[in-house]
Amino acid sequence: MAMTDFAAWSRAIQTRAENILATLLTDADIAPNTLHAAMRYVCLGGGKRVRPMLAYAAGETVGADPAQIDHAAAAVEFIHVYSLTHDDLPCMDDDDLRRGKPTCHVAYDEATALLVGDALQSLAFEVLAHPRAASDAATQVEMLRLLARASGSRGMAGGQAVDLAATGRALDLAELEFMHIHKTGALIQAAVLLGALGHGELNAATRDALERYARCIGLAFQVMDDVLDAETDTATLGKTAGKDAARGKATYLTLMNVKEARAYAHELLNNALAAIEPFGERGRRLAEIARFIVERSY
Amino acid sequence: MAMTDFAAWSRAIQTRAENILATLLTDADIAPNTLHAAMRYVCLGGGKRVRPMLAYAAGETVGADPAQIDHAAAAVEFIHVYSLTHDDLPCMDDDDLRRGKPTCHVAYDEATALLVGDALQSLAFEVLAHPRAASDAATQVEMLRLLARASGSRGMAGGQAVDLAATGRALDLAELEFMHIHKTGALIQAAVLLGALGHGELNAATRDALERYARCIGLAFQVMDDVLDAETDTATLGKTAGKDAARGKATYLTLMNVKEARAYAHELLNNALAAIEPFGERGRRLAEIARFIVERSY
Repeated sequence: MAMTDFAAWSRAIQTRAENILATLLTDADIAPNTLHAAMRYVCLGGGKRVRPMLAYAAGETVGADPAQIDHAAAAVEFIHVYSLTHDDLPCMDDDDLRRGKPTCHVAYDEATALLVGDALQSLAFEVLAHPRAASDAATQVEMLRLLARASGSRGMAGGQAVDLAATGRALDLAELEFMHIHKTGALIQAAVLLGALGHGELNAATRDALERYARCIGLAFQVMDDVLDAETDTATLGKTAGKDAARGKATYLTLMNVKEARAYAHELLNNALAAIEPFGERGRRLAEIARFIVERSY
Repeated sequence: MAMTDFAAWSRAIQTRAENILATLLTDADIAPNTLHAAMRYVCLGGGKRVRPMLAYAAGETVGADPAQIDHAAAAVEFIHVYSLTHDDLPCMDDDDLRRGKPTCHVAYDEATALLVGDALQSLAFEVLAHPRAASDAATQVEMLRLLARASGSRGMAGGQAVDLAATGRALDLAELEFMHIHKTGALIQAAVLLGALGHGELNAATRDALERYARCIGLAFQVMDDVLDAETDTATLGKTAGKDAARGKATYLTLMNVKEARAYAHELLNNALAAIEPFGERGRRLAEIARFIVERSY
């Protein structure tokens, strides 16, 4: 990819990710048809594809070809979309709108949305266990284990549970960050590490740099999500705006004002950029994504 | 294991499986505490452990040590328990009783039950990606892929979707068996294959024999489930009896009477026994499980 412009690069990655997801999802004319149609409905035709972008950009730091990253990028995105689908259910956040479309349980029904999420989680592990997902079997097992840990009770699902338990209750900064490090941070870190591991085993310095980068941008992403949720209208956001505050959910803005939150996000950005400085020009896309996360408006 | 008696062997396996599950589940004093407590609640203290039994028995056919099968047996059981937890939710079967205890969403709440199932699915893959789960990395990747396929939209989750779509509608035998081959058969087959693969790669004849055995006992299991659901009281069954028929769900007993169903189960049993005949004495436990499935009363 010779493109110098981040906007063009990110559009190219979005197109690439869309095509890979469409290929890896089962066709809707194969039984059970409704389930397969609903899986395609939630996965295709939208999304910023931040996690695939991170996977491909992390692959660039170790000199990977994008084709080596396709399965890892898709696996992480399938986990992400499954979590959104379950998170939108009436017993969780009860949301009607996602990526500008009716949520899965509104477009279909609750039982279908439940099974769509369940089947997407299985699909994530299936595509990551595909022969083309890694350069050697030992690294592939490590990648599978890493994604499983990032998704489970000590990762993303655990973060959701903390979030539920925290609703309507004041959290301090340490508690809030414990929640976010699990709820969104774990999968963002998995996206970065899997993208690099797709090319092969990592040395300790590279792995450490990528982990520090991922931790910082994971939190920065969440700080900016809270700022945008408070400041942006529903149409621009593509999901219901202002709901977190209305539901008494702890956000960064219950602990600091918008100006302080933006300053904190920039501090995290600088730490992320410092972590990947050793990669030089090969870390350029990761740096651009970090800036995008902090400077985006949707 | 020198025990000659199947009842003693199955009790030993139940104890072994219970201990492994208890070790692999995160302690309830680690955050998020409620989620970890609920995961232990649904997994421990009950269940026939048919799938772990199948995994250990399949391991015996290739001369495996039980310790080589522990992770595979646990992984399959975690998938099974996650599916029960989600299946009991109000938007699915809306069941209050499972293994003689209140279901997870009754004992906790719906959101917790949703996350328990999600996190157990992740845990299954984490456990199967553990270094001790297989004898070599290439076979381990194959095992992970096999479990993912068996769990997903073209396996167990797909079978659930077919089941939902079929409620209140007459099915013919071919449609009913398509549903069961996916809903319960896929995971039973995974239990058998993973148990043998835990020892190492399989030759084609062994794999084919195990697949044929698994297909037959998977269907026999479902035939007998329908018979027992119609004939047995709730207390003996440990789950609500007679509900499938009351809800207009297609069962074998809408297509044949109890006598015919029992005869069909015995025909499947004989086919299963024929498939594993080449294993001789090493297939004895698989043969005993097949007989147990068809002759059980709960």
